[in-house]
Amino acid sequence: MTDAATNMRLKLPLICIILEVILIILFGALVQYDHGTDARKWHEHLKNHSDYENDFYFRYPSFQDVHVMIFIGFGFLMTFLQRYGFSSVGFNFLIAAFALQWATLMQGFFHGMHGGKIHIGVESMINADFCTGSVLISFGAVLGKTSPVQLLVMALFEVTLFAVNEFILLSALGAKDAGGSMTIHTFGAYFGLVVTRVLYRPNLDKSKHRNSSVYHSDLFAMIGTIYLWMFWPSFNSAVTAHGDDQHRTAMNTYYSLAACTLSTYAMSALTAHDGKLDMVHIQNAALAGGVAAGTAGEMMLTPFGSMIVGFLAGIISVLGFKYLSPILEEKLKIQDTCGVHNLHGMPGILGAIVGAVTAAIATTDVYGDGMADVFPDVASGEVEASFQGVRQAISLAVTLGIALLGGLILPIFGAPPDTICFEDSIYWEVPGDEEAHEDQLTTVVRTEEAEKLNS
Amino acid sequence: MTDAATNMRLKLPLICIILEVILIILFGALVQYDHGTDARKWHEHLKNHSDYENDFYFRYPSFQDVHVMIFIGFGFLMTFLQRYGFSSVGFNFLIAAFALQWATLMQGFFHGMHGGKIHIGVESMINADFCTGSVLISFGAVLGKTSPVQLLVMALFEVTLFAVNEFILLSALGAKDAGGSMTIHTFGAYFGLVVTRVLYRPNLDKSKHRNSSVYHSDLFAMIGTIYLWMFWPSFNSAVTAHGDDQHRTAMNTYYSLAACTLSTYAMSALTAHDGKLDMVHIQNAALAGGVAAGTAGEMMLTPFGSMIVGFLAGIISVLGFKYLSPILEEKLKIQDTCGVHNLHGMPGILGAIVGAVTAAIATTDVYGDGMADVFPDVASGEVEASFQGVRQAISLAVTLGIALLGGLILPIFGAPPDTICFEDSIYWEVPGDEEAHEDQLTTVVRTEEAEKLNS
Amino acid sequence: MTDAATNMRLKLPLICIILEVILIILFGALVQYDHGTDARKWHEHLKNHSDYENDFYFRYPSFQDVHVMIFIGFGFLMTFLQRYGFSSVGFNFLIAAFALQWATLMQGFFHGMHGGKIHIGVESMINADFCTGSVLISFGAVLGKTSPVQLLVMALFEVTLFAVNEFILLSALGAKDAGGSMTIHTFGAYFGLVVTRVLYRPNLDKSKHRNSSVYHSDLFAMIGTIYLWMFWPSFNSAVTAHGDDQHRTAMNTYYSLAACTLSTYAMSALTAHDGKLDMVHIQNAALAGGVAAGTAGEMMLTPFGSMIVGFLAGIISVLGFKYLSPILEEKLKIQDTCGVHNLHGMPGILGAIVGAVTAAIATTDVYGDGMADVFPDVASGEVEASFQGVRQAISLAVTLGIALLGGLILPIFGAPPDTICFEDSIYWEVPGDEEAHEDQLTTVVRTEEAEKLNS
Repeated sequence: MTDAATNMRLKLPLICIILEVILIILFGALVQYDHGTDARKWHEHLKNHSDYENDFYFRYPSFQDVHVMIFIGFGFLMTFLQRYGFSSVGFNFLIAAFALQWATLMQGFFHGMHGGKIHIGVESMINADFCTGSVLISFGAVLGKTSPVQLLVMALFEVTLFAVNEFILLSALGAKDAGGSMTIHTFGAYFGLVVTRVLYRPNLDKSKHRNSSVYHSDLFAMIGTIYLWMFWPSFNSAVTAHGDDQHRTAMNTYYSLAACTLSTYAMSALTAHDGKLDMVHIQNAALAGGVAAGTAGEMMLTPFGSMIVGFLAGIISVLGFKYLSPILEEKLKIQDTCGVHNLHGMPGILGAIVGAVTAAIATTDVYGDGMADVFPDVASGEVEASFQGVRQAISLAVTLGIALLGGLILPIFGAPPDTICFEDSIYWEVPGDEEAHEDQLTTVVRTEEAEKLNS
Repeated sequence: MTDAATNMRLKLPLICIILEVILIILFGALVQYDHGTDARKWHEHLKNHSDYENDFYFRYPSFQDVHVMIFIGFGFLMTFLQRYGFSSVGFNFLIAAFALQWATLMQGFFHGMHGGKIHIGVESMINADFCTGSVLISFGAVLGKTSPVQLLVMALFEVTLFAVNEFILLSALGAKDAGGSMTIHTFGAYFGLVVTRVLYRPNLDKSKHRNSSVYHSDLFAMIGTIYLWMFWPSFNSAVTAHGDDQHRTAMNTYYSLAACTLSTYAMSALTAHDGKLDMVHIQNAALAGGVAAGTAGEMMLTPFGSMIVGFLAGIISVLGFKYLSPILEEKLKIQDTCGVHNLHGMPGILGAIVGAVTAAIATTDVYGDGMADVFPDVASGEVEASFQGVRQAISLAVTLGIALLGGLILPIFGAPPDTICFEDSIYWEVPGDEEAHEDQLTTVVRTEEAEKLNS
Repeated sequence: MTDAATNMRLKLPLICIILEVILIILFGALVQYDHGTDARKWHEHLKNHSDYENDFYFRYPSFQDVHVMIFIGFGFLMTFLQRYGFSSVGFNFLIAAFALQWATLMQGFFHGMHGGKIHIGVESMINADFCTGSVLISFGAVLGKTSPVQLLVMALFEVTLFAVNEFILLSALGAKDAGGSMTIHTFGAYFGLVVTRVLYRPNLDKSKHRNSSVYHSDLFAMIGTIYLWMFWPSFNSAVTAHGDDQHRTAMNTYYSLAACTLSTYAMSALTAHDGKLDMVHIQNAALAGGVAAGTAGEMMLTPFGSMIVGFLAGIISVLGFKYLSPILEEKLKIQDTCGVHNLHGMPGILGAIVGAVTAAIATTDVYGDGMADVFPDVASGEVEASFQGVRQAISLAVTLGIALLGGLILPIFGAPPDTICFEDSIYWEVPGDEEAHEDQLTTVVRTEEAEKLNS
């Protein structure tokens, strides 16, 4: 394996250092503490308030749950590949650490500017992690086929476009999308699918033997799955309004996920020829209920509605893995390593549609004064609820458009050859006996030699 | 392996879909947001309150810790078996997702009804997770010997009985049991022990070679252990009264667990013939201090008292694993895969007794006005503290009775044969080279062939 | 392996029981609930306050994050060794459970006494976990070469000295060190380095083949790394003043870590001869940004300053692993198994220096009334900011002195022989087929026999 193909020797260090130095300079020039993190400003504010009202106490536990999803959840979910565990966790770690800094600037530029400065605090940290999540979804589509240099370049572009799309949706169109069915999941999935299409490898089957799991790699992946599943209620509720909104969003998501889990197990056994459950489905489709509750979760969806949404999301997702993914690969040349179309793409669209419908039927009778938190423009009389539904639907279309076009313009360079995809050892010092992998190879070779000697 | 024996092909999908559809219908008919999650009701309430007083902020971090215990803690604790990791985490996931929904209804029916509707919020979510924990304890007793269809049926019955028992204890008898030494641990353990007795397999030693750990499976199990250990303070304090009660319960549990860990290591080395520590003890007995502080943890037990309780719990638990479990299996035909009698059964009873004694000696001098939070009936003068102790003791007896009888009436069908217990591959698509398991087999065979050729 | 060398058979049980009994007696004599955990005291306090103001709600989520770092973070970080996973997690668990109890007493003795009693609550729990972290850092230096009896004795001494050093720094010298760059990291690292120097093993290369990782052990270690990385913002902010202080500290640490991760990846690839990333660097150096933000994190360091600090910490740490550790081992006979000098030692000193400089340049213009929270003596006019900087610098020197001398006086007994270091099976019942370890040995032997037969 020559270094030229993966750019590890010099280009990776260079791009890391250059990006970080640029980030530091821009932070120095543009970024300031917001009023909840700045000593002077907070203490001026304190005259009429208490330290206990600092937003830290109402957002930070949610932030930490989201943080675990980004670094442990996404990182370990992708360790299912037998020989790509170091890269799954390690590149996830690298691009997330970069993306959250870049996202702070891009999102701040679009909706955090105060007198020419970007003000940051726990809410901007959550939003930066959210944006990072979108990049990691795209990473899932190209997993095993791209070098870290490519991934950093992808993150640079994708974060920028994410911030543009988010600005159009939330600020220009006035849409609601607290858990990011559109902004995070639909955007990340379709952006990643276009990138993997552009990078199509006709001879990828040369690495096919590595594009699968072993027993313990599937258990590591389950760590990722379960953390994503458990903390999704925190994810969807992390930036909703305080009070009933956060509370309701978390609960809706909890029930959506529970229902989704049962339909996932049902469909996994039902679609198998011998009734055996497939780890791929359990690891992924059981999470679709969280994706699909990302827009409507903060609305008065009711637990009943949430469970229906989750139930459908699980079914759609397993069917996608079973029947749609092979078609996408064969007909459209989309090689989607983690099946992000099934976990984030279709359930994201479902979530957007559910959000549009739920918004369209909102009434003051149901929301009371809480309408101002969920649909401020409806509460103020600026728009009708039905028009809020239209806004939501337009937002889905805009997201799909920007993601699909954005993925196309991405420049790509320095990928591993088709024969060495899904392989850690081209990026990492891998310990020699890796679960006795090489010992076995040696043993097999020696046995073959012994056999030759015999013949 | 025929499908008929495990019911995976059709019965599993059918039962999942039927149960989930029933749940959705019942939720639609019966369940409503409570005043902390409903937009209109909360905003009416807001007139005299602040969004910051929403119970979400005072319960949700505890809820998430409990949630981690249920899905990661219990799930990974049971991955110690060498060939049952998928089923341990995967079935834990499935039955927990079902049980928490069913528990919402059953517990709501018994103590959450308002005008014919069940009102839910973060506290009901914690209680649903608690009830689920009880089912997972029973799962530990039958681990490796039951199909997921059997487990779902067990969950259906057990959740129902749990709610009945909980209602009798907390509402009818006026007992206190915040961390569930009785309602969760004693109930779950003895229910599970009766189920595993009913399912007694005289020829289980045919699967004996799989009923043990390998090196990395023990490390996966330690993930479960450590998460249970760390978050047990949150578990015991999750539904206690706000203020000093939650604070004190968490701290008592913390010290109980720390003391328990030292006695567990001591007893594990002391009872081994060669002084070597046994992973089974560390993984399980070190947690007994959390179980044993489940009832008295919210009382003025003092850190001193908590440490004594934890110290004893560790000793009892290791002795149980070492000396009692073999007797239970041989004499009483109770095949307790995870040793739940040692981790949840005996320490649960210890916790109940400690709770009864601590309640009986409660005085206003010690509790001050805080008596109303811990023992409302004593504070109001309705009963003497000594009588509260009697109530607690009766509650233990009731729990044991209901659990032992309840486990008997459970209908069971569709179990794997004795020769294929503790085996993932009858339920799951297992990757072919599972840690090179089959490669090695091949290598051994080929080496044997080479040897034959030589001779 | 004789038992005499590791003291498992009798000395381990005895020391565990004796220590725990002493702890229980001392807790009984000296420890009381503080006003936030005591039922009577809190309810007297309640007359002017609300249950919602109990410190539990403002510290407990941070405590749980710290708790995860101590037990999962440190525990799993050290599982990278191929045959020492049980001991890494298991001894981490044991000595942490002991140290947190002992720390409660020692720290309480020095700064928690009220009328002859030690008052405890969530803040003392965090501080006990912090002190425990220091012991676990030292454990990292001697990992694989010490028996649990030695470790418990080390913990007993180290906790005591930690409390003395902490008292001198925070109370006598009036230094600030919320995240413990000095008290925890510098102290723990240099104490451990002296201990490992005292225990120097000239023939340790006899165990060299075990002093390395295998594929899955590196993945287990990444669980530890990522948890430490994610929760470090909670660690540094756990005991800072309420309001802007906690909020700011968490955010500074978040950006320091993100920048550190990019410089770590850059340096790891740059210093490798073939550009391949080294798991040792990623697992450790990427955390140096958290260590280095331990003192100045609560100050008005700005995200810009935090990122510079993290960026430098990552560079220093990787260079330490690559170039300094081999020199320390060869020239100074310091065998530092986990490289704690690179993760905690040098970054701790960097953090102390950054803290001294940041303190020295503090102005009322920047801090406003918040000065009283961060630098109370500067706010009250007792000292100039520049003198606060001098105090911080003296504190670093004191810490280094106490740690280096303290490590020397530690009595050590009962270590494994040089040939069986880094080996679980002398302390633990290890499952026979450990990832087919022994099967392979058998296979290799049999293959060799086959070859002999052929020749």
